[in-house]
Amino acid sequence: MSGSKPALLPSARLAANRPDVWTFINQTAAQCKVPPVSLSQGFFNYNPPQFILDAAKRAIDDVSCNQYQHTRGRLNLRKQLSKTYSPLYNRELDPESQILVTTGANEGFLSAFAAFLNPGDEVIVMEPFFDQYISNITMYGGVPVYVPIIPPAAGSERPVSASEWKLDMQRLRAAITSKTRMLVINTPHNPLGKVFSREELLEIADVVLENNLVVVSDEVYERLTYVDEFPRLATLRPELFKHVIAVGSAGKTFGVTGWRIGWLIGDAHLIKYCSAAHTRICFATNGPMQQAIADSLAVADQYNYFSEYVDSYKKRFRVLADVFDELGLPYSQPEGTYYTMVNFSKVKVPEDYPVPDAIKDRPRDFKIALWLMKEIGIATIPPTEFFTDEDAHIADTYLRFAFCKTFDELEEGARRLRKLKEYM
Amino acid sequence: MSGSKPALLPSARLAANRPDVWTFINQTAAQCKVPPVSLSQGFFNYNPPQFILDAAKRAIDDVSCNQYQHTRGRLNLRKQLSKTYSPLYNRELDPESQILVTTGANEGFLSAFAAFLNPGDEVIVMEPFFDQYISNITMYGGVPVYVPIIPPAAGSERPVSASEWKLDMQRLRAAITSKTRMLVINTPHNPLGKVFSREELLEIADVVLENNLVVVSDEVYERLTYVDEFPRLATLRPELFKHVIAVGSAGKTFGVTGWRIGWLIGDAHLIKYCSAAHTRICFATNGPMQQAIADSLAVADQYNYFSEYVDSYKKRFRVLADVFDELGLPYSQPEGTYYTMVNFSKVKVPEDYPVPDAIKDRPRDFKIALWLMKEIGIATIPPTEFFTDEDAHIADTYLRFAFCKTFDELEEGARRLRKLKEYM
Repeated sequence: MSGSKPALLPSARLAANRPDVWTFINQTAAQCKVPPVSLSQGFFNYNPPQFILDAAKRAIDDVSCNQYQHTRGRLNLRKQLSKTYSPLYNRELDPESQILVTTGANEGFLSAFAAFLNPGDEVIVMEPFFDQYISNITMYGGVPVYVPIIPPAAGSERPVSASEWKLDMQRLRAAITSKTRMLVINTPHNPLGKVFSREELLEIADVVLENNLVVVSDEVYERLTYVDEFPRLATLRPELFKHVIAVGSAGKTFGVTGWRIGWLIGDAHLIKYCSAAHTRICFATNGPMQQAIADSLAVADQYNYFSEYVDSYKKRFRVLADVFDELGLPYSQPEGTYYTMVNFSKVKVPEDYPVPDAIKDRPRDFKIALWLMKEIGIATIPPTEFFTDEDAHIADTYLRFAFCKTFDELEEGARRLRKLKEYM
Repeated sequence: MSGSKPALLPSARLAANRPDVWTFINQTAAQCKVPPVSLSQGFFNYNPPQFILDAAKRAIDDVSCNQYQHTRGRLNLRKQLSKTYSPLYNRELDPESQILVTTGANEGFLSAFAAFLNPGDEVIVMEPFFDQYISNITMYGGVPVYVPIIPPAAGSERPVSASEWKLDMQRLRAAITSKTRMLVINTPHNPLGKVFSREELLEIADVVLENNLVVVSDEVYERLTYVDEFPRLATLRPELFKHVIAVGSAGKTFGVTGWRIGWLIGDAHLIKYCSAAHTRICFATNGPMQQAIADSLAVADQYNYFSEYVDSYKKRFRVLADVFDELGLPYSQPEGTYYTMVNFSKVKVPEDYPVPDAIKDRPRDFKIALWLMKEIGIATIPPTEFFTDEDAHIADTYLRFAFCKTFDELEEGARRLRKLKEYM
């Protein structure tokens, strides 16, 4: 009888993908004789301040933290999020209906897509995109439709501001169909370091309101901005609050990417369905980490945590920027995040440099990243991974550098980068 | 233009469900003048042993725990799981390919269903079922097909062994169609307390192998058995290992349901796809709790943890069983888990007891549970929540009691239960 049945095949939603960039970079790094300085993945290689760790240890002793939490999140944390965000939203956020704690921002995206997408529904995604958006959307039969953010022409000549990367508004308007249901925006933007301006957001808002879209606004780097204002789409016009699900991240905010605490903020109607999806996905989120984040948010200002955090990242960026300036290597000055895009057009990467089969058909930036890792000893991320094949040419001379690393590591990175002089 | 677009409606997969039993029980409990003794939900109201909490606090100080973990789980934990389970499986389990750490057992189920179900595929689920199975299956377009476990006729007369509840094998065989892809089994079984015997599992195995099914074997209560043997389906015949995804839970094993650590064990082919799904769902699982569980598993025997755990639950059960015996109230003696099914046929619940609209159309056990909570002060769970409407009659005179509670609370429960004498 077993012959009449198919083998134990995976579902169509897991249909073979090409190997992801993280695996490629990590495997190549592992093969290097001298370990490369890792400026690739966006995780921290140091602990957050002691007050955050102490809050976690206190939570471990609390019986109520170690058992099932409320599916919408621990009430303490939801109340603290309301206290933290209400002034930023200019409205009293209700911890019962307008805030949902998720198992990392990632599961927050997934819950939002699960809540609002039926198979065949289209979702506008900007390139470059965070790669998990795509698998999260397609997991529920959603169809991503891509609109690129375009670098300034001068990006290959001289340092530019990340603000000079501009969303192709004409393509955005052209991308809307009767099936468009959602739009994803990321500000501050990974990997560009761009903070969308009020004007840009209002232009996007017109499209959202005209087409009655649900927006997933990935704001996980909201605390890490180097500009005066961080405009939040949900607050720019009163009617936008009904359309925007804002996604926050404790991992990014407090440098604990391994704790898996995120949150969604939005109108009760939006949060209600995200919450129903979240309950079915993870049921509830881990308790001790939730309590630790509640406590940390409550005292963060007391410790000048956020301003010191931003100052430290400005200094970290300078370690790299100084050597880029010295070399005349053009980069995008970030307005937020701990990433910078560096243009390698001026670097003479040997044309005949041998590349493994795995990346033979990938764009130029993969080859530059490989060469930089093996010959210069610096691991970065080739950004065309975050573009469709059609749009990859837009960014195929750039590499993404992450600077959420110790000063020692950044300085060693800068030392190695100076070797690039020989190739310019 | 916005008029031509639908309102911000949720996806069809969230189509309105009736309010779940947990919400009903918790809301009713909140309305009681005297708070009921909660023997309803299966969470612990006390902390686990100190060595487990200490392991968590140590992990918080470890930089490597606080950042993104490997998507398949922290290597330390996968290695420890291999060490713990290899002897139980009589084979060397490979931490790289045969073990996946998930964000709670719940997300483990979800990953398994996401990995193997295409829309329209059928999944055999036994009644009574853990309610999350159903939303996890339907989330991906899977179709649950139900087969009941039937209580012994004497179950309303005298105490029986949980082993006397028997899967309707005839209905199982009749339920198989060309679309059947998966089967879910739960042993030790919640809420029945039944441990499936070797003979029963081998009968089910025939159906699995004949029809080339993928089995999700929910074994989260594996450490809490009161019988000599706990047979694991995956180990009973060599060819079964290729078919069975076994699900384990740190929350159940160490009494920390709020930590959200679970794991899947199975053939590399099965785990590969579960892992791909898991990466898209939660990306990775929280680090400090993973390390704490690795450390706790490593030293558990040294602290006699598992044997003391089982002894303590035997004692906890006796507190309730003594009063059931005294009253002549028939119950199912559990072979595992911290649940017991109690038959209320002999209790004269007033026919005209007023019930709220929310449960007017629900079976008898909802009314018995309501009355027991309001008049006797004991919260339990009506088990027909875990049956289809067609099969609800099978269990509508039973209530599920959870005994994972402090001795003080259990004794207060026993004291209140004695009041039932007046109604028998």
